[in-house]
Amino acid sequence: MTSKTIILTGATRGIGLAIANFLLKGSEKHNLVVLGRNEEALRELEARAPSQVKPLAGDFSNLSLGQAAVDLALSTFGRIDGLIINHGTLGEVNRIIDCDLVNFRKTFDINFISAVALVKAAIPELRKSRGRIVLTSSGAAVNAYSSWLSYGSSKASTNHLAMTLKSEEPDIVALAIRPGTVDTEMQTSLRNEFANFMDPEDRAKFANLKRDGKLLRPDQPGNVMARLVLNAPTKLSGQFLSWNDASLKDFQD
Amino acid sequence: MTSKTIILTGATRGIGLAIANFLLKGSEKHNLVVLGRNEEALRELEARAPSQVKPLAGDFSNLSLGQAAVDLALSTFGRIDGLIINHGTLGEVNRIIDCDLVNFRKTFDINFISAVALVKAAIPELRKSRGRIVLTSSGAAVNAYSSWLSYGSSKASTNHLAMTLKSEEPDIVALAIRPGTVDTEMQTSLRNEFANFMDPEDRAKFANLKRDGKLLRPDQPGNVMARLVLNAPTKLSGQFLSWNDASLKDFQD
Repeated sequence: MTSKTIILTGATRGIGLAIANFLLKGSEKHNLVVLGRNEEALRELEARAPSQVKPLAGDFSNLSLGQAAVDLALSTFGRIDGLIINHGTLGEVNRIIDCDLVNFRKTFDINFISAVALVKAAIPELRKSRGRIVLTSSGAAVNAYSSWLSYGSSKASTNHLAMTLKSEEPDIVALAIRPGTVDTEMQTSLRNEFANFMDPEDRAKFANLKRDGKLLRPDQPGNVMARLVLNAPTKLSGQFLSWNDASLKDFQD
Repeated sequence: MTSKTIILTGATRGIGLAIANFLLKGSEKHNLVVLGRNEEALRELEARAPSQVKPLAGDFSNLSLGQAAVDLALSTFGRIDGLIINHGTLGEVNRIIDCDLVNFRKTFDINFISAVALVKAAIPELRKSRGRIVLTSSGAAVNAYSSWLSYGSSKASTNHLAMTLKSEEPDIVALAIRPGTVDTEMQTSLRNEFANFMDPEDRAKFANLKRDGKLLRPDQPGNVMARLVLNAPTKLSGQFLSWNDASLKDFQD
């Protein structure tokens, strides 16, 4: 396999960091443009493989970040073979009756509109490379939890983005992945500052998954997503699939 | 049946007007707060039944309109029994590669965030009245068409709103209705100014439905939605249902 150039968002921790680790470790010497809010963590990634990693720090409530990432990838590596749009925020975790509409809207900007902006900017290059787009979705896209409307509806919209790309861009493969319940800082937030906003049974479910050691490691879905951005076949385009779905067996550990 | 007070958005034409006609014609003398952008059309509705209709003109990109509607309903009629959130725009009809992100975001404000704002404002009253929320959704919530990402994803989010309300508000019944392909101005737009943005087969589908007289009349889904806002049972809450679904037979003509 030859070296590919991938733009990866939410790269500094959790699933995104696991994906970066996978893509950097092989002999193919893939190139990464890595995005996140934590500039120091991005610099650490760069220091591990300076010729392969280009960092771009920023907050995705800034909708121009997508174009900046595409410009950086092209000026540094000359091509784009794939996007992994993995950044996201739980955002406005609150019941509808108590929600802050300004923050609600900002959750959409960060989780969804910014993804559309990055995709839009990258499509011309991805058409040339017959590239791939992997979107981090969630079970919350198809299941409703109390206090999770902003997150869940932004992930339902993310799935719609994958479906629409299948319709609009036959030369690009796009899919939305449900990574399962992973031991990341998002889960820590759910067990702590957001715990009291959730229904008791949801709160107990997340606490018990942690207590019983049943949270996934970030590399479990991360490795699958990394292999998909390199090699996902056209027949998967438009789909919303769980990381451990049988149809992804060729991409699993 | 006693008189109820309903807030109805997108009331000036199409499905919304059909719903207003249904709710005003019976002997129950239901009260309506009607919203839309066309103030003259709202005044015509008011003139038909001045004691039952209170108009509120405005554009739903203004997120404070929901609270204003709730305030007007309470000051005029003293209670709220239901919402029919039926306004909407096709918005940014454009392929992702060509889309205008500012207009894309505005589509979300109008079709979805404004609905969250109205629901949030009305929940305290709907809890008291054990009221109902009927949301106008679309087949585009679950199917992707080229150039329809902003509309389709906003409707996917609308379905998520119904699901989340089921989880958060046990005293309120909320459901999202797929009204089918109805002979409204939205269809006229699709056959005209937006025709060239769509795939040829989608364009032909909509043109043929019109040519063959197969578009629905607005009152076909409208009557169902009007009956639902008055009487939908708790067991339907959270669902996304087609207007002609068998589970709605008690509400159909």
